[in-house]
Amino acid sequence: MSAAKKQKTDVKATNVTFQNNVLVTRSERGQVLGNKGGFRGCTVWLTGLSGAGKTTVSFALEEYLVSRGIPAYVLDGDNVRTGLNKNLGFSPEDREENIRRISEVAKLFADSGVVCITSFISPYKKDRDGARNLHEQWSLPFFEIFVDTPLAICEQRDVKGLYKKARAGMIKGFTGIDQAYEAPDSPELVLNTDNVTVKSCVQATVSMLESAGIVPKATVETVKELFVPEDQKNVARKEAEILPSIEITRLDLQWVQVLSEGWAYPLTGFMTETQYLQSQHFGSLLESGVTNQSIPIVLPVSMSDKQRLQDCPAMTLKYEGQPVAILRKPEFYEHRKEERCARQFGTTNQGHPYIKMIYDSGDWLCGGDIEVLERIRWGDGLDNYRLTPNELRAKFEEMKADAVFAFQLRNPIHNGHALLMQDTRRRLLERGYKNPTLLLHPLGGWTKDDDVPLAVRMKQHAAILEDNVLDPNSTIVAIFPSPMMYAGPTEVQWHAKARMSAGANFYIVGRDPAGMPHPDGGKDLYEATHGSKVLTMAPGLTQLEIVPFRVAAYNKVKSAMDFFDPKKKEDFEFISGTKMRAMARNGVTPPDGFMAPSAWKIMCDYYQSLPKQN
Amino acid sequence: MSAAKKQKTDVKATNVTFQNNVLVTRSERGQVLGNKGGFRGCTVWLTGLSGAGKTTVSFALEEYLVSRGIPAYVLDGDNVRTGLNKNLGFSPEDREENIRRISEVAKLFADSGVVCITSFISPYKKDRDGARNLHEQWSLPFFEIFVDTPLAICEQRDVKGLYKKARAGMIKGFTGIDQAYEAPDSPELVLNTDNVTVKSCVQATVSMLESAGIVPKATVETVKELFVPEDQKNVARKEAEILPSIEITRLDLQWVQVLSEGWAYPLTGFMTETQYLQSQHFGSLLESGVTNQSIPIVLPVSMSDKQRLQDCPAMTLKYEGQPVAILRKPEFYEHRKEERCARQFGTTNQGHPYIKMIYDSGDWLCGGDIEVLERIRWGDGLDNYRLTPNELRAKFEEMKADAVFAFQLRNPIHNGHALLMQDTRRRLLERGYKNPTLLLHPLGGWTKDDDVPLAVRMKQHAAILEDNVLDPNSTIVAIFPSPMMYAGPTEVQWHAKARMSAGANFYIVGRDPAGMPHPDGGKDLYEATHGSKVLTMAPGLTQLEIVPFRVAAYNKVKSAMDFFDPKKKEDFEFISGTKMRAMARNGVTPPDGFMAPSAWKIMCDYYQSLPKQN
Repeated sequence: MSAAKKQKTDVKATNVTFQNNVLVTRSERGQVLGNKGGFRGCTVWLTGLSGAGKTTVSFALEEYLVSRGIPAYVLDGDNVRTGLNKNLGFSPEDREENIRRISEVAKLFADSGVVCITSFISPYKKDRDGARNLHEQWSLPFFEIFVDTPLAICEQRDVKGLYKKARAGMIKGFTGIDQAYEAPDSPELVLNTDNVTVKSCVQATVSMLESAGIVPKATVETVKELFVPEDQKNVARKEAEILPSIEITRLDLQWVQVLSEGWAYPLTGFMTETQYLQSQHFGSLLESGVTNQSIPIVLPVSMSDKQRLQDCPAMTLKYEGQPVAILRKPEFYEHRKEERCARQFGTTNQGHPYIKMIYDSGDWLCGGDIEVLERIRWGDGLDNYRLTPNELRAKFEEMKADAVFAFQLRNPIHNGHALLMQDTRRRLLERGYKNPTLLLHPLGGWTKDDDVPLAVRMKQHAAILEDNVLDPNSTIVAIFPSPMMYAGPTEVQWHAKARMSAGANFYIVGRDPAGMPHPDGGKDLYEATHGSKVLTMAPGLTQLEIVPFRVAAYNKVKSAMDFFDPKKKEDFEFISGTKMRAMARNGVTPPDGFMAPSAWKIMCDYYQSLPKQN
Repeated sequence: MSAAKKQKTDVKATNVTFQNNVLVTRSERGQVLGNKGGFRGCTVWLTGLSGAGKTTVSFALEEYLVSRGIPAYVLDGDNVRTGLNKNLGFSPEDREENIRRISEVAKLFADSGVVCITSFISPYKKDRDGARNLHEQWSLPFFEIFVDTPLAICEQRDVKGLYKKARAGMIKGFTGIDQAYEAPDSPELVLNTDNVTVKSCVQATVSMLESAGIVPKATVETVKELFVPEDQKNVARKEAEILPSIEITRLDLQWVQVLSEGWAYPLTGFMTETQYLQSQHFGSLLESGVTNQSIPIVLPVSMSDKQRLQDCPAMTLKYEGQPVAILRKPEFYEHRKEERCARQFGTTNQGHPYIKMIYDSGDWLCGGDIEVLERIRWGDGLDNYRLTPNELRAKFEEMKADAVFAFQLRNPIHNGHALLMQDTRRRLLERGYKNPTLLLHPLGGWTKDDDVPLAVRMKQHAAILEDNVLDPNSTIVAIFPSPMMYAGPTEVQWHAKARMSAGANFYIVGRDPAGMPHPDGGKDLYEATHGSKVLTMAPGLTQLEIVPFRVAAYNKVKSAMDFFDPKKKEDFEFISGTKMRAMARNGVTPPDGFMAPSAWKIMCDYYQSLPKQN
């Protein structure tokens, strides 16, 4: 426990009087400052011509890191030339001293545990090597990044008009014009900024820092998938045939899909006991920083399977007899069902359909990394909608979305939902985003029997989009493969976190997420406001802004869905799910403006196809 | 949500191409970097003679802050004179430039969100004022600390032998000898280091930073008590007589005691709904940083009391008709008993005695700050053992304890417990602590009926100490006033956190903390290893090192309690609580070396005084 070690040094160093004259040595101090929250300080030294894009990349990188909790700080002309180095001019000696002082300050920042980003032309190899050597002497990582934008492009940009002045002879000794720029021989990274986004430059830099162990992996903006690489598939398939195996359920397979596609990133398989306890007690994974993970993703197995498999180094998960994945180093631990359900659902009532499934499942849990042989496909005609988080990220990039807002649903869309999605988009546009994009993301895994089946819902959603209730140009419809747990405020965090994995920045949350009636009857199982309250305070969701749901109801005066106004409540009619189902079953047309007629017809067809209830 | 705001800027800034040439302005950047985790950067400028203690205080302060997650960094001769300022000598101009550069670098660190601590003699008022002005220009807080150690003492310390050399004329222009030191006129803080501990200097500095809102309150090493100050008692008593009131239970009063003495610091009263949800879902308070708070501390009230009191600005809590505390701005929210018990205990089984009490309590919870009129006293002859966290801290200070290890118990002590407390002390001595001190801390609040009553336990503990099984010179026996909840891994965090409030640095944890049999019979309610596993991973307990329990059993060969050795298991006999109780009831003498005979006699007397069981 490194924090405890720190504490020890702390107590030793402070609980003494000055007579002892304790002098803390640099090495003792290094132990204390050593490893702050899993990353180390370093210097990222950007070099390149004026106008190459150094400052733009620097600030974007700084913001990227800081917004993810990693201390970072840019040294640039603004804060150095006008301050520390204001007594330096542009003579060769002063230029050298300028870079020397910057190197020294960068070293101090790196030593303090900060990612120091320097943004200076720094045209001379000798000066940059000086900076590198200085860091090496202090055992501090140093990354030289060559921002390699061709002179022609820099000159064409000429933001500050400096090239023009240099060409006109008004500035002497301008790098690239009448003074040489010595390009680095072997920089750690080369960025060419021509026709690429700032974001991709930042990503390349962050990937470099990640590979060097400077920043934690979760900082990178794609999620890791758990599929066997193409070139190793034959070997893996053969191994899977030989290994001892267990048969998994359809529900387990849905979780394999969730894990394999990276929705629960950085989870690399079914939870080990440590991960399970973190999830149960703190709603988070705590291994490298804090990752929200409110619900356990676990594989229940029987006692006999546990006894058969507990000493094997790996095993194959089979679904309907076919190998699906290899699970390495299985760790078996007790499936404490009562305690699990209590902590996950806030009840142990087996009248709750997911709790019933848990009680009916195996008495042991099996954790371990999984390697999935093939992408999970269901062959129901909807697989094309099952986009992985990385596929969704690529789509958003392609659409040039600068904000992605996600809407989770497991019910038909009515115009009230549409209203708040439209309203969210409007608010994001007002806040300055150019292209806010909606991820309309119906849940596609297991749902309880009386919910509308996925296929019907997808047809209904398509009808809504065809009707232009939502703008097809700024909307992506995809299926979220997770099972539904009806676990209220605990589950809503999972719904948000998974969308964060897919690149969403905003998550719409309403009253009573995942609500269902208490199995014993009477009230709802969860308090209606707890979902959005808990979501707003949940650790590990800092990359996501929560957009609270405004209550929509049918405005009889306007003949349209509208935001509920308590001052005019006589104008409004609340059309509950129960009421809507009854209308659809009886073929009653809902009030004008409640739902697009083509979509309503799909609902009627479905409900009327069901056997009549008593 | 400030993180979300950051994200917004992030997305806007990075998802563009370089053609746009986005230049991030300093003010936009300020928004991003503004408020990292609740504290802001600043500079703490230490000034004083050579040998005054600046460096010692600087490093101790740096360690103190860093070990609590607050970025801090010392600039001193070591890292500045040999680097950035290595091209400066000791001429008046160079001395001025030296301080100017340090000021500029400190400003950059403060701007980056770090507490920058500078440790330089900086003898001239003009230079120090320059540093202050520079920070003011950037709106960065600046604290000048005068380390006011008299010259005679500095010269007497003379760690580096510099005074000797200066007196001998070998060093010219030495501050205090042949060059003036200009003491600050109005520094933010004056520290006199003569005959005080480094720790108290650090505390004074941290208190100053806390008052200025630079560091969060929880960083200060005393806890806030919730008692009405002496000079306001008369007014408060009169107000308490007039306010509407409710009668609280004995259990509630125990929680009032816990809150008022600061065990649950930084809680300032019974939990509001926000705090309650944070505790239920994340085991923590998340308002300023992460504070471990695994169990809800709540005040149940009846529906009729809620209706009567919900609009009042304050109310009086009465116990047995006497005013105990004023509760301000009461917030009423539903006491969702099933969900609460599920999340707190991992079961809703009302055969569990604390759960039964919860189900029998009011249907609403009332949160709000409390002001407690008088210290809670029970008049049972044991009140002298009920030391508050701050009283315990003062005791440890007085005893010059450099490590405090806490042992929670609610049962009689046998030599197995004593063995592991002795062993912990031995290990701490080995690690370099000079005076590790034991906080032997029996729980004094409500316990279930078949536990040994507090008075008997205290007599038994006294007998153990009289017998010198534990060293009375390095042990404090005190009563922890909390009720017992028998909530396993959730509760063990509370037990640890409360001891952290009292200044403990180490917490001993065994198998099955707070274990009890499952109310339905059969197995234990909690898995035996989960307590120590969850405690080790729990957020917000970083100031505490967890010392795992080694299993002790009676070694028949050695005739003593000993650490269990699985290789020689035939040598060992496990004496369970049940077995011990049966022996005491029947007056059977336990094996030699199991428990001090005087202590055993107290057990026998107690158990034999109970009515015979069927």
